[in-house]
Amino acid sequence: MHEPPHPLPAQAADILARLREKRPRVHSITNAVAQNFTANVLLAFGAIPSMTISPDEIDGFAARSDALLVNLGTFDAERRVACGIAIDRAASDGKPWVLDPVLIDRSPPRADYARAMVGRAPSVVRLNELEFETLAGLKAEPRVLGRYAADAGLVVALTGAIDVVADGRRHIRVGNGHEWMALVTAMGCAGSAMIAACLAVEKDPALATATALLALGIAGELAADRASGPGSFAVDILDCLYDLDRAALIARAKVT
Amino acid sequence: MHEPPHPLPAQAADILARLREKRPRVHSITNAVAQNFTANVLLAFGAIPSMTISPDEIDGFAARSDALLVNLGTFDAERRVACGIAIDRAASDGKPWVLDPVLIDRSPPRADYARAMVGRAPSVVRLNELEFETLAGLKAEPRVLGRYAADAGLVVALTGAIDVVADGRRHIRVGNGHEWMALVTAMGCAGSAMIAACLAVEKDPALATATALLALGIAGELAADRASGPGSFAVDILDCLYDLDRAALIARAKVT
Amino acid sequence: MHEPPHPLPAQAADILARLREKRPRVHSITNAVAQNFTANVLLAFGAIPSMTISPDEIDGFAARSDALLVNLGTFDAERRVACGIAIDRAASDGKPWVLDPVLIDRSPPRADYARAMVGRAPSVVRLNELEFETLAGLKAEPRVLGRYAADAGLVVALTGAIDVVADGRRHIRVGNGHEWMALVTAMGCAGSAMIAACLAVEKDPALATATALLALGIAGELAADRASGPGSFAVDILDCLYDLDRAALIARAKVT
Repeated sequence: MHEPPHPLPAQAADILARLREKRPRVHSITNAVAQNFTANVLLAFGAIPSMTISPDEIDGFAARSDALLVNLGTFDAERRVACGIAIDRAASDGKPWVLDPVLIDRSPPRADYARAMVGRAPSVVRLNELEFETLAGLKAEPRVLGRYAADAGLVVALTGAIDVVADGRRHIRVGNGHEWMALVTAMGCAGSAMIAACLAVEKDPALATATALLALGIAGELAADRASGPGSFAVDILDCLYDLDRAALIARAKVT
Repeated sequence: MHEPPHPLPAQAADILARLREKRPRVHSITNAVAQNFTANVLLAFGAIPSMTISPDEIDGFAARSDALLVNLGTFDAERRVACGIAIDRAASDGKPWVLDPVLIDRSPPRADYARAMVGRAPSVVRLNELEFETLAGLKAEPRVLGRYAADAGLVVALTGAIDVVADGRRHIRVGNGHEWMALVTAMGCAGSAMIAACLAVEKDPALATATALLALGIAGELAADRASGPGSFAVDILDCLYDLDRAALIARAKVT
Repeated sequence: MHEPPHPLPAQAADILARLREKRPRVHSITNAVAQNFTANVLLAFGAIPSMTISPDEIDGFAARSDALLVNLGTFDAERRVACGIAIDRAASDGKPWVLDPVLIDRSPPRADYARAMVGRAPSVVRLNELEFETLAGLKAEPRVLGRYAADAGLVVALTGAIDVVADGRRHIRVGNGHEWMALVTAMGCAGSAMIAACLAVEKDPALATATALLALGIAGELAADRASGPGSFAVDILDCLYDLDRAALIARAKVT
């Protein structure tokens, strides 16, 4: 007896098609290390990035965007002011936003700030195991992720060798990816920006999140087939994101 | 009957030769997303970049440079102070400078600031159609570009599928380029930096501007022949700029 | 009669092996142009980068790191505050740190600041000839380098066509490298970060410094064999750093 195929890959292909048609604007408040790569990932994926953090104009950029990314990787005073304004705008306009609490396990003040940001109702929090445990004060176990997501009213996207997307009702596990993804700076940050792009064209945030992680993981596998090391891998993954199509999503997906 | 060839490609080849001999210093006040790529484009093209925005030292850097780029893509308070000091220095030393009013169509305060900067007499303003219309409050039509350029006493470089360089007397149209240039972040910003580099070695600002746009467009076409997507394209365009020679400029130029 | 082989290449191979086993954390306060490339160089080499400059959290990051890089290439007020805090932490924890006084020959206030930083006892200062002469007020001659190093109680790493490492007792000269290294922005900055990484796993700072410069120079030669220009070179050098092994270090080293 065959198990029916998981519905995600076909749904992800639909979301990708909508993304490329709509070309949503994603305003990304992200760290200085990640800005350039994140912008290029968004462009290759099919979205339009903007990146300003100036308090004078962040409201205007957020208002003209379809989704927002708030990445805490550079935690300077100006960015914190910008975050507050942009989140206010997203909230009042009913637009989705993603929180990426980079490296909060290494910085107690950043962790405090991230916990306050969770109270501002992000659609999705993307983080790794150590970051989750710092944010939640809980072990990153499947049941715990779901409970945390339900209590906080958001989707948790825990990335690692296997990515887990939990919203309190469902767990989607995505097993695609390649070890070189950990050797390119800002790869996780770029993944968070891709989640924001998918949220702009898909109302179910868990599905949007899983789509972004699936697309990035499969692009990573395809890039690793071409690349000679982490340098060329970072280049090839952009080409592979740009070329990614329904057939590759469906053929290569490892989703449970 | 043959039309005589346009003089630009041969003039551009001369300017490129002077650039590589002189290796001018271009101080670039540019946005955080663009800094690394802009520096590498300038190096590949034959110029020497510097990038500081510190108010304490911007005067010294501007004074030791041959041309200046002012890009408004990251519009923070410190950069605005730096811009003012650097433009004062360029004005008092009689050095050329380029204004790149990135995304002013999305930010009214940035548009106001850009209009004030036009009053500071840049040699060239490089922008796209939406940015021109925001800056000038006028439709981006050929006659309008020329009138705006003449009134403001500068060269307008309107980039798009076809680039137009207008100084009130002449229109130079450059048709080279590739669609992937729009899929690499900071490509336009880097083009503005190349204009600044050419201004350092060529007194006719319209000619310098058209040279930079021609070189970038042809490098883009050559890179697209090698590349597999926008990621490898961003790498290959650097190699192609570095290799660009008189023969390629003359053979491939689409100038009217 | 044969001269015995220089001991450095074999020692460097041992240091590289320790680096890849320990994966030290290197906190890099570096300029905005260099941040992304530096992080990727550290990852490819075998270290774990972090980059924050926020005064609120720099102490925590420095405390959790194995070595520190202080690069003065973006000399803004916030970075200077961060530098002071991070150096205090390195001093009180007895951890090594590297000073990279980028372009101080073009900025008197930056040069003053760099001289003050030398008084804070860095393990290593990496710079080019013009930067050394600005810092020390002395000609960059072999004997002078050694005397300066001994007086200041640090290692001088003077990089150029031939790199010289001097600590007052020894001079190690590394002749590896490729001219394209000067056409990739932040290559020197990344080299300084690699020195910091080696200091984290090797107590002799001259040996650690020479190891990093040897590894970077050989990776540069290997990358130049594959690359088509400075764009692909910047990518290939990451792949070559990642692949670098004992055999290549020993076979290709030009050390005296």
